[in-house]
Amino acid sequence: MTPTGTTLVDSLRSGDARALARAISTVENRAPGWSELLKALFPHTGKARVIGLTGPPGAGKSTLVDQLAKHYRNKEENQTIGIIAVDPTSPYTGGAILGDRIRMQDHYSDPGIYIRSMATRGSLGGLARATADAATVLDASGRDLVMIETVGVGQDEVDIVRLADVTVVILVPGMGDDVQTIKAGIMEIADIFVINKSEREGAERVEREIRSMQSLASRNDRWMPPIVKTVASEGVGTEELAKAIADYEAYLKKENLILKKNVENWQERLVEMLRDAMLEKARSQMDGGSLERYAAEIAEHKRDPYSLVEEIVRGAERN
Amino acid sequence: MTPTGTTLVDSLRSGDARALARAISTVENRAPGWSELLKALFPHTGKARVIGLTGPPGAGKSTLVDQLAKHYRNKEENQTIGIIAVDPTSPYTGGAILGDRIRMQDHYSDPGIYIRSMATRGSLGGLARATADAATVLDASGRDLVMIETVGVGQDEVDIVRLADVTVVILVPGMGDDVQTIKAGIMEIADIFVINKSEREGAERVEREIRSMQSLASRNDRWMPPIVKTVASEGVGTEELAKAIADYEAYLKKENLILKKNVENWQERLVEMLRDAMLEKARSQMDGGSLERYAAEIAEHKRDPYSLVEEIVRGAERN
Repeated sequence: MTPTGTTLVDSLRSGDARALARAISTVENRAPGWSELLKALFPHTGKARVIGLTGPPGAGKSTLVDQLAKHYRNKEENQTIGIIAVDPTSPYTGGAILGDRIRMQDHYSDPGIYIRSMATRGSLGGLARATADAATVLDASGRDLVMIETVGVGQDEVDIVRLADVTVVILVPGMGDDVQTIKAGIMEIADIFVINKSEREGAERVEREIRSMQSLASRNDRWMPPIVKTVASEGVGTEELAKAIADYEAYLKKENLILKKNVENWQERLVEMLRDAMLEKARSQMDGGSLERYAAEIAEHKRDPYSLVEEIVRGAERN
Repeated sequence: MTPTGTTLVDSLRSGDARALARAISTVENRAPGWSELLKALFPHTGKARVIGLTGPPGAGKSTLVDQLAKHYRNKEENQTIGIIAVDPTSPYTGGAILGDRIRMQDHYSDPGIYIRSMATRGSLGGLARATADAATVLDASGRDLVMIETVGVGQDEVDIVRLADVTVVILVPGMGDDVQTIKAGIMEIADIFVINKSEREGAERVEREIRSMQSLASRNDRWMPPIVKTVASEGVGTEELAKAIADYEAYLKKENLILKKNVENWQERLVEMLRDAMLEKARSQMDGGSLERYAAEIAEHKRDPYSLVEEIVRGAERN
């Protein structure tokens, strides 16, 4: 444990938002000390509720998350909140940062809400890993509730929401031809369905489709994911959604499923962590330009990549 | 080289569709002999053109790919085609297989078109890896053209289309609020933009948005991605798209960028291959139930995962 690390952990635990931002950046960018920091934070984790929200572009996720945040900040609930908005934006346009600023204005005066955007940073390291680590930091900082909001329904998003205790899948009427495909891809991960913009034509059709696909899906528990209709832009349905979330949490508790879910999540995360760490090990054994050189030899068909990888793994790479 | 492998490679090279299907399944599922098979196929690769097509759900990708396939099968072009349709469908509903069948009927009598669906199979192994390997098999089998069609704009899709020589991004009018975000995420990977369903209201707006974002984006070459308008369901714009693809291929050739692109692609792929192979190595050193046991200890806070991973990587795991 470095002295810097100790100080950062202390500031973080005392609720300092700047320390929080710095700690998340440290783990996100794998900056020096990231590993020691996570080790020091780990004993303080496991207290926050983690809610994952995902859905296709245009479903109104951000608005819904903002509404939920307002709900959980009200007097009865009075929870402190961390929001991680995972954004598949390009480094050029600064979409993530911009979106961050616009949305933060709303809650600017409320230190009980901390919003962090995570942008795609290429395949190395991985967005799911970075998001998991950011959630760990928010949890350790003492936030009562962490909401992870992510666009899309690809494997990335499945990996990201998998670390949540509760997964909310947001759909919207009139999504076009591939809506069946999307829904099929997320039937397994949805604990709760939201039909947002439910005042629009086609809301009943989406509901029917979810119901008919539910009859095909087999969850490994007996929870039947409810469908909540919302109009997030007008705050309609937020209370119902919060209630559905609370119901599912109560179900998890009653059936003693929380630990089971955690064990499953950690199995997945351990594999990902191992994968990254082992890659680092392999790369550290290669000298600077060798990856580029190998790639050139493969592109010119002077070397086959499959044998090369076996060689490197055996620790017998030629330089 | 096993005798089975040799036979499979020979049948595959002779154009046998059943051998092709078996070879793709072997590498996709990492069935016994997959590695030897890929090694044997590698010398036969590098001849096929690879075109990647991606876009959000509902953009009409499949229809557009079918139209392109028809175009490339006509008398003047007369190319043999392999199509890989990457589908984020669930194992429950069999969406991938179903879609496969429906679409195959169209080309059923034409052995010059081979269609293969790839479904998401959890995070292990990875869809991008499986798709790359399937493309390698199709290339080695002697197909002139490989089209990779994938839904969405997440990191998965970026990884998948990255292995294509030409990347076509398909957009559609009226996609809703997050359209800016989507476009930002794919500005770097699009060599050609398609606005499909361009008879619909809003097509000009999508075009203006692409143009305005292009002024912000900085490609590391001087290619200005053209925008092609199509109505795929009526075959409108297919010829123009094929011409845009040919133009870009000519540009790559003229500027000597093909090898450069290949080297970059192989760098990415090598890292992914190393990551998987090193994970395998780490897992092979762990006994059967130890991952589950570790995950349980972490979930119960008896052990911190970051130190554990370091331990395993050092090859000093306790059992």
